Amino acid sequence: VLAISLDELAVRLGAVVLGDGNLRISGAGTLRSAGPDQVTFLANPRYRQQLAETRAAAVVLAPADRELPTRAAKLVCANPYAAFAEALALLHPPPEVTPGIHPTAQIDPSAQIAASACIGPHCVIGRDAIIGDAVVLEAMASVGAGSAVGAASRLHPRVSIYAGCRIGQRAIIHSGAVIGADGFGFAPEAGAWRKIPQVGGVWIGDDVEIGANTTIDRGALEDTVIEDGVKLDNQIQIGHNVLIGAHSALAGCVGVAGSARIGRHCRIGGGAVILGHLEIADGVTIQAMSLVTHAIREAGEYSSVWPAMPHREWLRTVAAVRRLPSLSDKLRGL
Amino acid sequence: VLAISLDELAVRLGAVVLGDGNLRISGAGTLRSAGPDQVTFLANPRYRQQLAETRAAAVVLAPADRELPTRAAKLVCANPYAAFAEALALLHPPPEVTPGIHPTAQIDPSAQIAASACIGPHCVIGRDAIIGDAVVLEAMASVGAGSAVGAASRLHPRVSIYAGCRIGQRAIIHSGAVIGADGFGFAPEAGAWRKIPQVGGVWIGDDVEIGANTTIDRGALEDTVIEDGVKLDNQIQIGHNVLIGAHSALAGCVGVAGSARIGRHCRIGGGAVILGHLEIADGVTIQAMSLVTHAIREAGEYSSVWPAMPHREWLRTVAAVRRLPSLSDKLRGL
Amino acid sequence: VLAISLDELAVRLGAVVLGDGNLRISGAGTLRSAGPDQVTFLANPRYRQQLAETRAAAVVLAPADRELPTRAAKLVCANPYAAFAEALALLHPPPEVTPGIHPTAQIDPSAQIAASACIGPHCVIGRDAIIGDAVVLEAMASVGAGSAVGAASRLHPRVSIYAGCRIGQRAIIHSGAVIGADGFGFAPEAGAWRKIPQVGGVWIGDDVEIGANTTIDRGALEDTVIEDGVKLDNQIQIGHNVLIGAHSALAGCVGVAGSARIGRHCRIGGGAVILGHLEIADGVTIQAMSLVTHAIREAGEYSSVWPAMPHREWLRTVAAVRRLPSLSDKLRGL
Repeated sequence: VLAISLDELAVRLGAVVLGDGNLRISGAGTLRSAGPDQVTFLANPRYRQQLAETRAAAVVLAPADRELPTRAAKLVCANPYAAFAEALALLHPPPEVTPGIHPTAQIDPSAQIAASACIGPHCVIGRDAIIGDAVVLEAMASVGAGSAVGAASRLHPRVSIYAGCRIGQRAIIHSGAVIGADGFGFAPEAGAWRKIPQVGGVWIGDDVEIGANTTIDRGALEDTVIEDGVKLDNQIQIGHNVLIGAHSALAGCVGVAGSARIGRHCRIGGGAVILGHLEIADGVTIQAMSLVTHAIREAGEYSSVWPAMPHREWLRTVAAVRRLPSLSDKLRGL
Repeated sequence: VLAISLDELAVRLGAVVLGDGNLRISGAGTLRSAGPDQVTFLANPRYRQQLAETRAAAVVLAPADRELPTRAAKLVCANPYAAFAEALALLHPPPEVTPGIHPTAQIDPSAQIAASACIGPHCVIGRDAIIGDAVVLEAMASVGAGSAVGAASRLHPRVSIYAGCRIGQRAIIHSGAVIGADGFGFAPEAGAWRKIPQVGGVWIGDDVEIGANTTIDRGALEDTVIEDGVKLDNQIQIGHNVLIGAHSALAGCVGVAGSARIGRHCRIGGGAVILGHLEIADGVTIQAMSLVTHAIREAGEYSSVWPAMPHREWLRTVAAVRRLPSLSDKLRGL
Repeated sequence: VLAISLDELAVRLGAVVLGDGNLRISGAGTLRSAGPDQVTFLANPRYRQQLAETRAAAVVLAPADRELPTRAAKLVCANPYAAFAEALALLHPPPEVTPGIHPTAQIDPSAQIAASACIGPHCVIGRDAIIGDAVVLEAMASVGAGSAVGAASRLHPRVSIYAGCRIGQRAIIHSGAVIGADGFGFAPEAGAWRKIPQVGGVWIGDDVEIGANTTIDRGALEDTVIEDGVKLDNQIQIGHNVLIGAHSALAGCVGVAGSARIGRHCRIGGGAVILGHLEIADGVTIQAMSLVTHAIREAGEYSSVWPAMPHREWLRTVAAVRRLPSLSDKLRGL
């Protein structure tokens, strides 16, 4: 574990110290959990009460909160949550990586592997694949023919990248993610389904994070596109030829059907489903578990959420809704 | 990349050429994207406008559309979408496979591996497993004891097949799929759960495609059954003892609970959930994100979809619905 | 296949035999499928009719059902379903395991592997990891630095455990599960997202089962916690810092957002979503596909389920609900 003085930390975060700059910080925690050698943060006003009681050595907070009472030293800066993220990164540097190729990895002779890359045990890399500078493939990655992984990207164990996919720089891809499997394309023919070969690829920009067991299908004829800075949580399904605009964030278990186009800076709540062949504007927020069935042309918040309630009450509600069409007719009669 | 003359292509598709049969075709695209050496198709009337503007060399279309204006040569046939699929398969043949067993694969001596099969790096094949003719196991497949994979099937990297499962011929199974994990069966006992050993298997017919990270549980006492020609998209969960009838297609993120029986030629939209121990007739379509709670005895389309709307408007709707039971009571008073 | 006499079986199940105790039992089945050398069970009254017709050698049933007519011998005991589970476990013992480390496994020299553990092909075990007595890691498990797997746990092929996670004793973890991937934490900064390093871990109690392709994220600062006896089905997503109380059971495709706290002995239906930063009391049942948006403080059953109905009828319902806010206004006028 590293330790760093409060003064040093303040320089790294661009913060002003109120308190003893010689304090040594060796970890981080919440207002409630942080101990006397740890830093914490206050970003949400509803935790102000906890500030008075924290045992932390120091707290990162905004100028508006600098006068609040606390025994902790203060690190004052404009964006406390982002600064705290920076402090965490300083205190928990990623494990050191030794460049090289593990002897159990199977690399096609035509693949180009940067000398600074680290290829872990049991990885399999196909023909003409390109692995960039300082890329880390942890164990059991599979990178298909002609695919490229951009510089400084990290693939956690057991990531599959099919042939013909392009991953940008500084990607973080979690275990079990699958990039470039066939889109779901079939033509009905004589009572059965004929497979439409999926010959597009996947194009992923820079600074994209992809969660565990998330799947991004390859395009049918053109590419599926994930723009720069997109963040995908776990267990998400992205259909073929979807486009997700830069800096959008999708929470866990979201499904996006084929050829949907999601704008930039959108936020999609967990378990939401976006139907295919529709467009969502920039800056749209979709609530968890909502279903988008039509184009959304204006920024803002959209929902089709039914909050759970006691079962008996819910049954009465459902029954009343079912009588509603006939009720409406009767009312029109009045 | 292959190139093929329009006349040759027409023969393969069973189509009639209107235009220069000597044109060389070396790829395929959409009406909008196809270039002058590519073939495209028109199946949906709403793209007729794009036909006039396409730069494609040739377009596959139906007899009814043969007179529509376009600079492209025409390939006229009864089912343009299926014919286009065939063209794609001709222009993008799967990578050639060299039979043999990769030296890093771990094969139980009792397993039967066809001489024409290709077993990729780091595969693990258990006792008495059977791998059929021309099967391709890409990297890191795991095939449990006594399981069988039928001729000409392809498993993409990182597919798990537990013991006692049967996969038919010409299966395509995508990365991360898990076939034959234990069904979710527990008996309550003294405030805890006692595991019910899941001793059935999984029986999968011919020509089935299974998407990335889809899971199909083994049966409790008898088999879970997926009949011929079923197509499963990504991230689908099939519970124990489910039966899915031939040629049904399930979109991404669908969940099917234990012992549900889905008919033949059904279509289940993305994110839908089918509760357990119920039966769905042949030819049923379930809309995306709908919940099936009771048996469906007649073919047709079923839904319980709430389309997302602006959040404020939605909140008013939810509030009105919640008042509905008491409102109904009052109206009965009128 | 084992065979066991009815008398022996009765001793093991704590049951009383009514019938020929010398009968040999060599398998188990349902009332409908069990053959003349198999045992079956009756737990649900609606299957009583099948009891009269079963061809099974013996049936496990409750004292209340001991007089029901059947040709089968009877094994009478208080909890027939749990006793049948025990019979299944006796008749289908898990495959024998030979302790040892497969030569293709990659084990960090600092890891502690119990002599009685079995480490399968292509496993990868990191620095300072601890693998307990009689643990079985099937093929391609990945166990990160400093993680521990408790005694008698079994990991099916292709399980990922990141660094800093703790799995209790007797865990069963199915293929494709990912424990300890980063939680979904990002701070907005200048129109982009800054990653919050996720430095907590995952703490999993004893007797937990985790389904195929289920994901459990590591905590942001503190641990994500899964208490003793919890059962998680397939394709479940557990966000960072979630706590799931002992003996709760979650069905397939459930999503639990960050920092939600679910009580003990809860049951969550398939596809339900629990929003983050809320608390659910002990003994709560959530229906399939319901959405929990607020704290639930009392035991009981909760729902927000819309059952699917014929599409046209549904469209009328949706339209009527959309008119409801204005309808309410008019009614207030009356």
